[in-house]
Amino acid sequence: MTLPTASPAAPVTALAGAVVPVLLSGGSGSRLWPVSRESFPKQFWPLISERSMIEETVRRALGEGFAAPIVVCNHEHRFLVAEQLRHAGVASARIVLEPVGRNSAPAIGAAALLVAEQDPDAVLWMMAADAAIRDEPALHRALAAAVAAARAGWIVTFGMRPTAAETGYGYVEVGDELAGLPGVHAVGRFIEKPDQATAAVLAASGRHLWNSGMFVFTARTLLAELGRHAPDVLAALEPAVSARTQDADFIRLQPEAFARVPSISLDYAVAERTAFAAVVPADLGWSDVGSWAALWELGAKDAAGNATVGDVLLEGAENCYVRSDGMLTAVVGLRDAVVVVTGDAVLALHRDRAQDVKRVVDRLRAAGRSEAAKHPPARNA
Amino acid sequence: MTLPTASPAAPVTALAGAVVPVLLSGGSGSRLWPVSRESFPKQFWPLISERSMIEETVRRALGEGFAAPIVVCNHEHRFLVAEQLRHAGVASARIVLEPVGRNSAPAIGAAALLVAEQDPDAVLWMMAADAAIRDEPALHRALAAAVAAARAGWIVTFGMRPTAAETGYGYVEVGDELAGLPGVHAVGRFIEKPDQATAAVLAASGRHLWNSGMFVFTARTLLAELGRHAPDVLAALEPAVSARTQDADFIRLQPEAFARVPSISLDYAVAERTAFAAVVPADLGWSDVGSWAALWELGAKDAAGNATVGDVLLEGAENCYVRSDGMLTAVVGLRDAVVVVTGDAVLALHRDRAQDVKRVVDRLRAAGRSEAAKHPPARNA
Repeated sequence: MTLPTASPAAPVTALAGAVVPVLLSGGSGSRLWPVSRESFPKQFWPLISERSMIEETVRRALGEGFAAPIVVCNHEHRFLVAEQLRHAGVASARIVLEPVGRNSAPAIGAAALLVAEQDPDAVLWMMAADAAIRDEPALHRALAAAVAAARAGWIVTFGMRPTAAETGYGYVEVGDELAGLPGVHAVGRFIEKPDQATAAVLAASGRHLWNSGMFVFTARTLLAELGRHAPDVLAALEPAVSARTQDADFIRLQPEAFARVPSISLDYAVAERTAFAAVVPADLGWSDVGSWAALWELGAKDAAGNATVGDVLLEGAENCYVRSDGMLTAVVGLRDAVVVVTGDAVLALHRDRAQDVKRVVDRLRAAGRSEAAKHPPARNA
Repeated sequence: MTLPTASPAAPVTALAGAVVPVLLSGGSGSRLWPVSRESFPKQFWPLISERSMIEETVRRALGEGFAAPIVVCNHEHRFLVAEQLRHAGVASARIVLEPVGRNSAPAIGAAALLVAEQDPDAVLWMMAADAAIRDEPALHRALAAAVAAARAGWIVTFGMRPTAAETGYGYVEVGDELAGLPGVHAVGRFIEKPDQATAAVLAASGRHLWNSGMFVFTARTLLAELGRHAPDVLAALEPAVSARTQDADFIRLQPEAFARVPSISLDYAVAERTAFAAVVPADLGWSDVGSWAALWELGAKDAAGNATVGDVLLEGAENCYVRSDGMLTAVVGLRDAVVVVTGDAVLALHRDRAQDVKRVVDRLRAAGRSEAAKHPPARNA
């Protein structure tokens, strides 16, 4: 593997060496229905604490060493994002509005183009707005290692030691540690979400880690690699960014131009193709909070393994996740069940079938039901 | 066994030989929480059809051969009873109000005293207001046999062939057929709700039937046997009936007197002690609708064994009972579960634990929760 050309020493710029957090607030979180809705997706709900997911996420990237965050979100969610950042105590942020969703490569590409206008050598820390991280000290140690590697031209991800043969995550094969970059390893290859048999092999191998989907790189490196491996994306993106409009609160990408950008993830467009992929192995207690099963995993549990939120009464329940955003909810004698109650819908499922919640949402959408997409009015619970 | 003295030929009276239906509307149906509440118990809900249980029950006892029904109910439920009888098309009825609950012997005793004032030889058909009967033609055939035996001085119950080793029902041991009364058998003995092992023996014996708790007898026979086997009940009851007050709609038993009546079931007070017990074996598709498990049994099911009521969406569910009186309710991948949603509470349980719903109600009551007893306001579903 050829080492990329190292960046020049960071010039004195507006960003002054600070890391720029970039939160991607895409996705509708349909597997967390009926709480998560298109109109109010999971990142805006308090799912694992008293704070919303996006508030928890942005708070991990505030303070010394961090520049003002960039949040790339759907135009429809702009007020939710702005209000929740305000609530989180974010003094200044750039909220970049996508007129349509185009997956992660265009979203982070737009952020990188904006940052590069000020300082192409600034380091971007790209993250989903809706993941959970339990061990923040470990995160900040891993981030320091990743930032050092990013300044040396690497595109760095974080790799978590698998605790199960998970099929919902991609995997990263870990190579040798990079010279002069302690804790940072070359990536053998990225492996997309595997089937169950492959997941079992990967999880047991000791050489494969879960791919968190967080990345650290400079704007310069990201744009160079995007131009090399997905030139159509970069070419379509540049006019959408340069023709943006901007007011006091929001940066609006030019709609017609952005609509022409191919929809593709950063993993496909760059990470799996670049020669400069690196990984920082780090056990962060990370979870993408992708399903109700994940929320049960993350929740504080009673002696019988039940995690509850809200007005819940249990009688002989075991290993259940029960959440009520309103009405009294009683669960009797069920095992491994999830019961979720909102102001307009009830979901009861077996935890092993947590992925199938998406099918419910698809069916509701096909039936034109408002419960598929629109969140209910708040109720006094 | 000695045959009782036969009644004289029915005299021409106001009742003119018609059978008097007596509906006992006691019980709070707490195992059917959260639909059934003290303030609005199960007999007033449409549980197995579009009609309420009490309406279904009274409609089985209208028309030729039946006198105006008597309903004995809690004072608190008088308007519910009156309105639902009105809705059922009952032109005239006597609604007898109990100031407190005293179980079935005082309730039917009061009805018998009222009927005896007009015609002591009138036949009463006593029934719970909240049982289901699928086969009405079979019921009316069995009733004709029971009425003939009642006129001959017997206290007649209906016995259903057990379809399971049920511990929630009492059993009747069937003796020889009575001379001159085809289809009517002497009762060997009554057996109270058995334990599981005993239930298995009884259900397999071929000689034991489920005791429906419906009885047919003349007022004269019932009062004579009540006086013989539970004289304290009859003695306390008579002043409560004779000092009753009556207006256009309701008959009110005298409260202080009725409060002094011992609380005892007709089974204990009379049926298990009388020498004149008889049984009509009859498969009526009868159920006391005592739990959500019974409602699943009774419900029409899809190919996967699911019974649903209301706005329900299933995905991979098997043998579930799902009922929503309002909100959209989705069930994914659960087996043998019951999910019930009302305007103010949600219950999710394993069907094998259907009896434990009572514990939930007890705990809610202990906590002073309104959901234990009070029904929610109607919602526009």
